[in-house]
Amino acid sequence: MLTLASDFGSPYPAAMKGVICSRTDAQLVDVAHDLPRQDPRAAAFWLRETLPHFPPAVHLAVVDPGVGTDRRAVALRVGDHALVAPDNGLLRPVARRFADRNGTEIEAFEITVEEPTSSTFHGRDVFAPVAAAIHEHGVDRTSEVGMLSPIALESCVDLRFPDPTREGDTIRGEVLVVDDFGNVITNVPGAEIVDVESATVDGVSAPVVDTFDRVAAGGRLLTVGSHGYVECDVNRGRGDEAFGLDVGDAVEIVVG
Amino acid sequence: MLTLASDFGSPYPAAMKGVICSRTDAQLVDVAHDLPRQDPRAAAFWLRETLPHFPPAVHLAVVDPGVGTDRRAVALRVGDHALVAPDNGLLRPVARRFADRNGTEIEAFEITVEEPTSSTFHGRDVFAPVAAAIHEHGVDRTSEVGMLSPIALESCVDLRFPDPTREGDTIRGEVLVVDDFGNVITNVPGAEIVDVESATVDGVSAPVVDTFDRVAAGGRLLTVGSHGYVECDVNRGRGDEAFGLDVGDAVEIVVG
Amino acid sequence: MLTLASDFGSPYPAAMKGVICSRTDAQLVDVAHDLPRQDPRAAAFWLRETLPHFPPAVHLAVVDPGVGTDRRAVALRVGDHALVAPDNGLLRPVARRFADRNGTEIEAFEITVEEPTSSTFHGRDVFAPVAAAIHEHGVDRTSEVGMLSPIALESCVDLRFPDPTREGDTIRGEVLVVDDFGNVITNVPGAEIVDVESATVDGVSAPVVDTFDRVAAGGRLLTVGSHGYVECDVNRGRGDEAFGLDVGDAVEIVVG
Repeated sequence: MLTLASDFGSPYPAAMKGVICSRTDAQLVDVAHDLPRQDPRAAAFWLRETLPHFPPAVHLAVVDPGVGTDRRAVALRVGDHALVAPDNGLLRPVARRFADRNGTEIEAFEITVEEPTSSTFHGRDVFAPVAAAIHEHGVDRTSEVGMLSPIALESCVDLRFPDPTREGDTIRGEVLVVDDFGNVITNVPGAEIVDVESATVDGVSAPVVDTFDRVAAGGRLLTVGSHGYVECDVNRGRGDEAFGLDVGDAVEIVVG
Repeated sequence: MLTLASDFGSPYPAAMKGVICSRTDAQLVDVAHDLPRQDPRAAAFWLRETLPHFPPAVHLAVVDPGVGTDRRAVALRVGDHALVAPDNGLLRPVARRFADRNGTEIEAFEITVEEPTSSTFHGRDVFAPVAAAIHEHGVDRTSEVGMLSPIALESCVDLRFPDPTREGDTIRGEVLVVDDFGNVITNVPGAEIVDVESATVDGVSAPVVDTFDRVAAGGRLLTVGSHGYVECDVNRGRGDEAFGLDVGDAVEIVVG
Repeated sequence: MLTLASDFGSPYPAAMKGVICSRTDAQLVDVAHDLPRQDPRAAAFWLRETLPHFPPAVHLAVVDPGVGTDRRAVALRVGDHALVAPDNGLLRPVARRFADRNGTEIEAFEITVEEPTSSTFHGRDVFAPVAAAIHEHGVDRTSEVGMLSPIALESCVDLRFPDPTREGDTIRGEVLVVDDFGNVITNVPGAEIVDVESATVDGVSAPVVDTFDRVAAGGRLLTVGSHGYVECDVNRGRGDEAFGLDVGDAVEIVVG
């Protein structure tokens, strides 16, 4: 199995799929090709929340504002999973999740492809061929033929989501992502609002409920979303618009 | 084969795919993940118009404004097809279509999953695991292990498309869906405009033709669309804008 | 393997997939279903840039403003690849690319399907069944059963991208497509700007660089894109907006 994720929109992912299918007989599964564009942190969130559901696979992920510069291309191996991406931190959160869950180490490799055809489409010219090679031959054999070189994980770009802070009843956090429904997903752990009936977000009050339909259509709500974080949502509407929040915004939640 | 349909946009369907692939070796086919959002009736139209083209399969469909409330989750078996969805009527039109075509009965089952991980993402935590179990083991064996319990079909939420009425040359109907091209698909059967040269829609006249390119680019037209209903369209343009019509709008067509 | 490309958006491609899967056991790969709508030339560009990466396959492509009129439906065979589409030129550029690369001839066939179910959805009623038949039985056997008839390639609608002209330092070209990132892809070969440090596009100056991140975020740039043509782009922004260019626009590039 080989999963693909990118911010490429359409139809560039098809070129990657063609390159892969011409080199290995893989079941392809699209994760998303509309990952937050050129935003490795937000994209890394979605990779961490989706890839761990998959069985052992090669996971190709390309959100790559530095394409064609001297940023490295890397592969990580965590147990039975292999991950391939630019070295901009995109893979670190999901790799940690895999490692924590399975008690395995993360091994890092630099991808070495001589003279890619283009300077602007390494998804097609670098990442797809390497992902296909790993799917076909495994990480060890792909290293032996010179497409991967072991490196220290510590040398790779790291990327961590910020931690919220709490003083008394005030929690200061940040918006990690906004999903397609307009749900605003913060970095505040759900545990912070357990047993709370309502809270204010940047001064605006909303009930804390377990699911959307507990409030009237169009009503604001706070809930512990499926990722385990506090979300600022609207039943059958868009939380980002109702709360005036976007990715990266600071958010102050007062409980009790 | 396992088909997936939802109003989830991206990337939530990937979590469902991961859950499924980690439990069964299925060929996955995406039907659509931009079904009309939180609109089970319009979504049910598209399921009825697409799923009957498939060979025997498990069909997973999630448009679920009541997620996490006490609405039930159900599976329907119709001949060689199994359908899995929230009990909000989403599956009833396509199940009837399967049953009518094959002369088979519809059997209903309640899905019983103890304590799903989340209250807001039953696509991942309830429907995907059950669809995978049905794909892997069949409906009967999945019932035996307690994930499904037989129920009366009559106890399930029904959903029917409205019927138009006709008085003389005036047909009063409703817009069922608007497609990606802006074509306005009504509930008026195509037979109503056979042998008609032109008609008015809410007072606006348009020729009745067999296909788009019979009128000039930008011109309004009425045609019997691929679903068998009267459509209000524009050649190389958007019918919804030209006719000022949207999903659920009443529409008065005068023929002759 | 069977690839699918169209301008159908969603969910119409699912009906085609169902028709195909009910007739042949193919690995389906979506190329794109948001090809430039009802614009065979721009769509033909994307087919030429994506399909040649694939291993031998049947390629189904439907961008069909003339559906239901007397435009023909055609299949082309080029070596191990078969292509199925309306006869509006959509397939000619990619077929030439396949033929040039492999030194093979292009063979043309007219698709003959009696009385398709609809006049407006030949993707489902004509092209999908024929593509499935070719995948299942091959071109020769599909001809023998009467679904294909050999015709002269010269009788098929041709479609060629315009050539730019150069006088001194001034190159006059045209915008072929704008991609999802807003990158403006012209018909000017990259060789025209090799060793040039900067150029003007319709009087606006921009540096010529090898990749996006050579200029500051938001900065205009010219580069030889992954298709080999001069592109007018913006680093982490949209070139179409910054340069005021859209598909089909004339563009005057002055180098040196």
